[in-house]
Amino acid sequence: MTTTSSPSTASPETLAASLGTAARAIESTIDRLLPMVDGDESVLLEAMRYAALGGGKRLRGYLVTEIAGIFGAEPEGALRVAASVEMLHAYSLVHDDLPAMDDDDLRRGQPSTHKKFDEAIAILAGDALQTSAFEILADEATHSDPSVRIALVTALAQASGAAGMVGGQVVDIRGEGKSLPLDQVRRLHAMKTGALIRYAAEAGAILGGATRVQRDAIIAYGRDIGTAFQVADDVLDTTASAEELGKTAGKDEASGKSTYVSLLGIDGARAEAGRLVEQATQALTSFGTEAAALRALAHYIVERRN
Amino acid sequence: MTTTSSPSTASPETLAASLGTAARAIESTIDRLLPMVDGDESVLLEAMRYAALGGGKRLRGYLVTEIAGIFGAEPEGALRVAASVEMLHAYSLVHDDLPAMDDDDLRRGQPSTHKKFDEAIAILAGDALQTSAFEILADEATHSDPSVRIALVTALAQASGAAGMVGGQVVDIRGEGKSLPLDQVRRLHAMKTGALIRYAAEAGAILGGATRVQRDAIIAYGRDIGTAFQVADDVLDTTASAEELGKTAGKDEASGKSTYVSLLGIDGARAEAGRLVEQATQALTSFGTEAAALRALAHYIVERRN
Repeated sequence: MTTTSSPSTASPETLAASLGTAARAIESTIDRLLPMVDGDESVLLEAMRYAALGGGKRLRGYLVTEIAGIFGAEPEGALRVAASVEMLHAYSLVHDDLPAMDDDDLRRGQPSTHKKFDEAIAILAGDALQTSAFEILADEATHSDPSVRIALVTALAQASGAAGMVGGQVVDIRGEGKSLPLDQVRRLHAMKTGALIRYAAEAGAILGGATRVQRDAIIAYGRDIGTAFQVADDVLDTTASAEELGKTAGKDEASGKSTYVSLLGIDGARAEAGRLVEQATQALTSFGTEAAALRALAHYIVERRN
Repeated sequence: MTTTSSPSTASPETLAASLGTAARAIESTIDRLLPMVDGDESVLLEAMRYAALGGGKRLRGYLVTEIAGIFGAEPEGALRVAASVEMLHAYSLVHDDLPAMDDDDLRRGQPSTHKKFDEAIAILAGDALQTSAFEILADEATHSDPSVRIALVTALAQASGAAGMVGGQVVDIRGEGKSLPLDQVRRLHAMKTGALIRYAAEAGAILGGATRVQRDAIIAYGRDIGTAFQVADDVLDTTASAEELGKTAGKDEASGKSTYVSLLGIDGARAEAGRLVEQATQALTSFGTEAAALRALAHYIVERRN
């Protein structure tokens, strides 16, 4: 009798508890890293805190801390990197919500940053959140080895810049109202949302000093769950209510965007998501029980309701 | 007979030639670091190149290369750091010009980035220019020692983030139409424009492995010419024509901003600029002829016509 053919997977309840614990720790780390200041610039810090605190599943931050933990990295450094990727993610949401971009008044059921403050402050708060993300990575409190910190800065820049998240946002804007083929939709999402999720996984491996082979396995996992996340998002946009999503539902269809659902149908998109989850867990074959939560996370990502 | 009481200063012609040579080298470095790409995101690279290439005195980049040269740093690395600070500066101009901010249609006599492209592309091009600036600093082609690269990333983040340039921009916006006392105007400019100029000087010293004492002297020089630059800008805004400036003149007075001129008068502001130039060159006392161009630069900064 052997157990290698059915690798250990955490229960949904165990994963939920683990996600909740990490989210609270990441939240308090962000709170600590963005202290209020005196002076006329205090409104900037207020807006940065408004955008970065109090919301979201902290999926990217969780990937960092969970994977860093697998490789035995120091928890405080992992939390700083987790906070940093969540700040980077928050900056992208603040700018995406601007009137000149997606023009979204709501984010997680609350006024988006430019509605709560104003457009100028929202642009600048996004700018400064990006800066803070890099500043935190470069700080020696994140890791004692400067080479590790440099590797994190480089990986984040590649994932979030013109060849990654921001480039994907441009491809998305340019594709509105056009019918894109599946390979271009895949490429768009690999850049726009996939790159930062993959980075979060990779960052955990970098922090923990993973071997090249381990790091590649983690990157493959991150890439697959990143794509699965977007496929699941497209399905949710079609099937979930605005209340469940905390944002406007059915936006993709209304804007004439090519999505996994418009290209594959609901059932086809669900099958694609399932295939990606399978592939993501395959990438973890060389890991044992220590990756139980990551396996459960891959399933959770496509089964979530928001 | 001694020459120590009148330290070596380059002639205006020598400085102009040195500035021109550096500007061309920095321009071609930026050109190389921002190559065009295929795909729908090509418009992003076009906008980044439009914003970062073909303009400006490259004062910040010049400070990096000139000071790095004094300390014997490798020229290629210095040019990369110079290109990086100019990209960071370009990002700040693109975002400052947006309708929600200063709403400027012209920049150096050309359509500003959001007029040439559109607002969404301008926001994203600014975002990606910031990312590129950090990515370039972190690259091993910039310096072989990761500690040096980390020091550059940290210094740039501190100079450009919430405690520096972006914070200063917020203080500036909040101060519009209000009468600010001199100490607050000083603080505003030390953050908004001073921090990045001071960083450029410091970056040259970091690259060249300057001693702590040398670095402090260079930082003091950078701080003083940064302030002098802003005082001179306020004078120019009052006295120069739009044609000379390549942008709208008299904007500060029209917007009711407190400036060095509104607080000190034209003559008082000119005297303040002179005092700062004197102080900047004092900071270079321990340097000999190798700092001749820096001394000339301090004078040039307050005597320029645009």
